[in-house]
Amino acid sequence: MKKSAIIILVLSTFIFVGADKIPKSPTEILADAPASDWVDIDADNIVIGKLADGTEFIYLLAPQFAPKHIENIKKLVRSGWFDKTQIVRVQDNYVVQWGAPENTPLPLDVEKDIPAEYEFALSKHKFKQSPYKDTYAPRVGFIDSWPIGANKTKGWLPHCYSMIGVGRDMAPDVGTGQELYTMIGHSPRHLDRNIALVGRIISGMENLTNRPRGTGEMGFYKEEGEKIPFASFKIAADIEENARPIFQILDTNSKTFDAWIKARANRGAPFFIKPAGAVDICNSMPPVKKVN
Amino acid sequence: MKKSAIIILVLSTFIFVGADKIPKSPTEILADAPASDWVDIDADNIVIGKLADGTEFIYLLAPQFAPKHIENIKKLVRSGWFDKTQIVRVQDNYVVQWGAPENTPLPLDVEKDIPAEYEFALSKHKFKQSPYKDTYAPRVGFIDSWPIGANKTKGWLPHCYSMIGVGRDMAPDVGTGQELYTMIGHSPRHLDRNIALVGRIISGMENLTNRPRGTGEMGFYKEEGEKIPFASFKIAADIEENARPIFQILDTNSKTFDAWIKARANRGAPFFIKPAGAVDICNSMPPVKKVN
Repeated sequence: MKKSAIIILVLSTFIFVGADKIPKSPTEILADAPASDWVDIDADNIVIGKLADGTEFIYLLAPQFAPKHIENIKKLVRSGWFDKTQIVRVQDNYVVQWGAPENTPLPLDVEKDIPAEYEFALSKHKFKQSPYKDTYAPRVGFIDSWPIGANKTKGWLPHCYSMIGVGRDMAPDVGTGQELYTMIGHSPRHLDRNIALVGRIISGMENLTNRPRGTGEMGFYKEEGEKIPFASFKIAADIEENARPIFQILDTNSKTFDAWIKARANRGAPFFIKPAGAVDICNSMPPVKKVN
Repeated sequence: MKKSAIIILVLSTFIFVGADKIPKSPTEILADAPASDWVDIDADNIVIGKLADGTEFIYLLAPQFAPKHIENIKKLVRSGWFDKTQIVRVQDNYVVQWGAPENTPLPLDVEKDIPAEYEFALSKHKFKQSPYKDTYAPRVGFIDSWPIGANKTKGWLPHCYSMIGVGRDMAPDVGTGQELYTMIGHSPRHLDRNIALVGRIISGMENLTNRPRGTGEMGFYKEEGEKIPFASFKIAADIEENARPIFQILDTNSKTFDAWIKARANRGAPFFIKPAGAVDICNSMPPVKKVN
């Protein structure tokens, strides 16, 4: 063997070993995932909100955790009731809120007296525990590609950035679903188990977060003219099949998800010098992708 | 004693006991704090950034933790260098970034080769440990009214919402201070100890978070015209004494701070049904108030 060939062989071995040593980034792991690790999202749980200014945001509902609230929300969407509402509150490092306050007339079939749905029995679900500790919950993990806070027997959705909650009055009653909010700052997890969470925004979050902050108490817009009107809300299942957006979510029971969360906890070269060795539940929201 | 007087006495006892049982809210605790629990902030560490559109944001520097970076930042502010820079990047749920990239000419006295300043020896400071656990750091707490992540011997500033970091290149080198960013979503704590943090925004955060998100890679603005220009940066100490803003910060070694953090961990009636019993380091940023 010629000397130059040996050098090339030795070099390519080094390159191979070197490449092998750099673990895949979270983005690379998602790009390499088998198609079977992505789960189709039920179009009946996807809501497309269009704003009067032409922008939109899309959210995913979680009927397995808050069925009664979500029954109401779907009725309010399908009846066109939400179309006439507005964004009424933008409080920095806290929430964007839309809908209409209690005592606004509602369609007759909307239930006003519903159960709290703030937590649920874990025994009814397949809970996959995260190895990382949490400040607020005894343990955290995932069910059906949703982030979950949990103790020994109960589970609940956490107030992570982009999750959607149901506004309610000060007294410990229960909201109807006519006022919704999403988290736009550092996740206010102290709200967990005190309000019903019903879903998460999966597209167009930036069309809510970029709004002027309200200057009234708690970030409410002071003037009628500041409120941001909607054009329409639609459930994806109600749109003709080839015209509706289609989304998939990464299966949290897949090996790809395990690798992804581990890579997010241990970010590597070239940028990272000291990987954290852990990742917060709100920094590991199961990835969603639009496939059509 | 008349029967009615007895009833009034009994009733008022009930009212007194009742009022006594409802613990003070975090806001009430701050309102009732003795003046001595608030510490004056050194005007030499306050930077006032004015945008060309007339809005402003104000940030506080932490020279005790990143002295070399902050020396550079003060030189860049005082020389007027930052005035000609822009907001160049707004990435949703991540950062707003301003300044100018490496290889932009800098004033001659700005140091290009500075130490990492990503962490510091705890032995040099009075560290007050928080009782609550953290996902990212072995322990968290406070030094001089700054939030701190820590292990046994080292401390570091955490990447909480509104903290300010120093942009750097991909390779594990060190930024000069000419590119700064602040966190605008769920706190990206995995960046801790991988970048120098130098301060926090104490006023006008909403004038950064309400900006359009950049549509380029990593949220950079694609077009020159999208970039958001500044009018001026000034250090408060350089402004005439009766014209400069004056701020105070709650002393994290005070009893008021202990009560405040406990109240934030255990939110009470009338709204809260299940207090969390804990609070995240990024949800307990020491309160700041403007006194002039």
